[in-house]
Amino acid sequence: MSKAGTSKRAGEDINKQQKKIKNIDEVLKLVKKLAEQGRKNTTAERSLAELDLAHSVREVVDKDADAVLDEIETTMLEVAQSILAGNGYSFDIPSRAKGNQLYVPELDRIVLKDTVSKRPFASSQACRKTAITTRILGLVHELCNKQINVTKRDLFYTDVKLFEDQRESDAVLDDLSCMLGCTRSSLHVVASEKGVVVGRLTFTEDGDHIDCRRMGVGGKAIPPNISKVSNIASDALFILLVEKDAAFMRLAEDRFYNDYPSIIITAKGQPDVATRLFLRKLKLSLKIPVLALVDSDPYGLKILSVYMKGSMNMSYDSSNLTTPDIKWLGVRPSDLDRFNIPAQCRLAMTDEDLKTGRKLLEEDFIKANPAWVAELELMLKKKEKAEIQALSSFGFQYLSQVYLPLKLQEGDWI
Amino acid sequence: MSKAGTSKRAGEDINKQQKKIKNIDEVLKLVKKLAEQGRKNTTAERSLAELDLAHSVREVVDKDADAVLDEIETTMLEVAQSILAGNGYSFDIPSRAKGNQLYVPELDRIVLKDTVSKRPFASSQACRKTAITTRILGLVHELCNKQINVTKRDLFYTDVKLFEDQRESDAVLDDLSCMLGCTRSSLHVVASEKGVVVGRLTFTEDGDHIDCRRMGVGGKAIPPNISKVSNIASDALFILLVEKDAAFMRLAEDRFYNDYPSIIITAKGQPDVATRLFLRKLKLSLKIPVLALVDSDPYGLKILSVYMKGSMNMSYDSSNLTTPDIKWLGVRPSDLDRFNIPAQCRLAMTDEDLKTGRKLLEEDFIKANPAWVAELELMLKKKEKAEIQALSSFGFQYLSQVYLPLKLQEGDWI
Repeated sequence: MSKAGTSKRAGEDINKQQKKIKNIDEVLKLVKKLAEQGRKNTTAERSLAELDLAHSVREVVDKDADAVLDEIETTMLEVAQSILAGNGYSFDIPSRAKGNQLYVPELDRIVLKDTVSKRPFASSQACRKTAITTRILGLVHELCNKQINVTKRDLFYTDVKLFEDQRESDAVLDDLSCMLGCTRSSLHVVASEKGVVVGRLTFTEDGDHIDCRRMGVGGKAIPPNISKVSNIASDALFILLVEKDAAFMRLAEDRFYNDYPSIIITAKGQPDVATRLFLRKLKLSLKIPVLALVDSDPYGLKILSVYMKGSMNMSYDSSNLTTPDIKWLGVRPSDLDRFNIPAQCRLAMTDEDLKTGRKLLEEDFIKANPAWVAELELMLKKKEKAEIQALSSFGFQYLSQVYLPLKLQEGDWI
Repeated sequence: MSKAGTSKRAGEDINKQQKKIKNIDEVLKLVKKLAEQGRKNTTAERSLAELDLAHSVREVVDKDADAVLDEIETTMLEVAQSILAGNGYSFDIPSRAKGNQLYVPELDRIVLKDTVSKRPFASSQACRKTAITTRILGLVHELCNKQINVTKRDLFYTDVKLFEDQRESDAVLDDLSCMLGCTRSSLHVVASEKGVVVGRLTFTEDGDHIDCRRMGVGGKAIPPNISKVSNIASDALFILLVEKDAAFMRLAEDRFYNDYPSIIITAKGQPDVATRLFLRKLKLSLKIPVLALVDSDPYGLKILSVYMKGSMNMSYDSSNLTTPDIKWLGVRPSDLDRFNIPAQCRLAMTDEDLKTGRKLLEEDFIKANPAWVAELELMLKKKEKAEIQALSSFGFQYLSQVYLPLKLQEGDWI
């Protein structure tokens, strides 16, 4: 480890820290224990049906192309019968409004209550929207039939004359997802991906065998359509979820996963739908813990919240997009003093940061974990933030060679 | 091909177009010819030394870690000798200012003229900058020694106390690149990547064998450090450079490269340094044509200009980043009428668009190609733009099954 960029005192600190690191089996002891607990503890996977809720609720699930085709054909048969009976036709669209959303603490997820609105064709107000709904049903039918995937933008361009504005076709697509009870990716409309993955993981993507141990430093681009991913296999003990590209690159280049059996994932900032789906699928298939490495600032926590409980406007889809059980490994506010991050690598929090931080204190997913509350309160008290890269002040490879091994060895996640 | 979303007339048009497409050998005839011409025509690869320029000029080249270590050690030996001789020390930093830049039409590249400024340590004005330069020389020496790569942000965080602001360490890094005569990636400071690649291509990345024919739909993330890429092999006839993610996904999912032997690359919008380095390396190793598929708007052309002649602030590094010979396949302004893109899929150009377009008309790389001037003039006259996705109005797979095959068959690139 180079002492470049650090004072003599800091250099001694690093040496002391390095000496603390035991052999790899010892380092991994607590992670193994966490992984075992995770396999035993399956309560998190309770379904809505098992709960005795006061409201009748609705959520969407992944369905294969045939199931979606069935749903669409059933819907259109009803439409045809209604028209033949002289009643015209209308769709029943579940409301996605905030008032119709329900937080289920047992599942730690948001679901939709049972408010439904009619969308009749024979109404001057609803006619256009009903036409759009019918048209998109037809397009989705075509996509499922051909088994091809397109983006929302592609969908919009197939009938600009009718849709006029992409927000219209996007909104109806979300309506359909709720109406048919399936996820947006089941409709074969996918998000463009920006995440990457490396490490102890193999899977099949659209028939191709992918080995993430042999993906160089750049890694494998995370597939845009999760339905084409199968045969997930891994001997990793944990998934390391990294906020930033630079930290991902450091760990990939140092082949961190060779010594510490892991899968390393990043969405390069704000998580996209494809990365969230991929993380969830890995967690469910492999049943190994997810440890998160984010900046020590409110934005880092915001990112964790998107992974853990989803974004409000896709709440109806939350159960398919979220990975509730993520451990916060670092960089945590208490790490700044513990690891002696130099003062000049810490940044003062802006008023905006402080506001965001205070709002986070009110969030359920923070309040549910006293250790998280304590860290966030420390951040707000000290009014300091720090990026993952602040660890570079102790040497370029401090992250992979000292910080992470120590954290793992001590089981220092919350 | 579905006629969904199109009138009967348009449906007939598509049928007619499809019938025009011959068998694959016929379709590829003109591309093959273009590839052969490219292999014969090596004049584009003339070096600076071969030209008889009035100015003494300087450009940077890729150097391996040992060569960079040599350069740094030679520099520091001179520094030590100068100090021992009682003269203190200073660095000779080539000027990167616009006045010191020279466009070389024979190479179609920008190089630096010979203005150099002294950066002495014994000067109250330059002292701090000289200290930063010395420090970064030391850090780069460490990186080359350890053969590891870091980002600019990592570099900044190794000594925040001295650098104070990342712009300072970034600027000095560019100075050093010019001073040592090597590219920034030779200094082992790399850009974070966002590009992806699929198709008929295999290479070795940091010892791993990568096969881009077996990368599913998501593709392989383009490596951040081009120096770790070797053994490039391919039976592709051309490289298809795609502006947008959505079009890349369409082509990857349809396995376009199976029928039409090609390598498909996208930087997902504005090209990053890693994607530009990768494209250049492919073009130089494989000597096959690069065909570009961008939006029909000034921004699409701007993107081509970054690939072809680089961005102004990295002009000194341009020869290592640019791929001068790119053919504009589509979507071109003349395509809008030729392929009967429906009026509602065309967008009116904004005042800003028109201004950007008019500025482009003054650019050397446009003026050098009369066919490009004609297309750009048509765009400005019609005041219409269109995205690649506008082709979806003829069916989701129109791009891969009709538009591109027809373009290739007719040799319709400029």
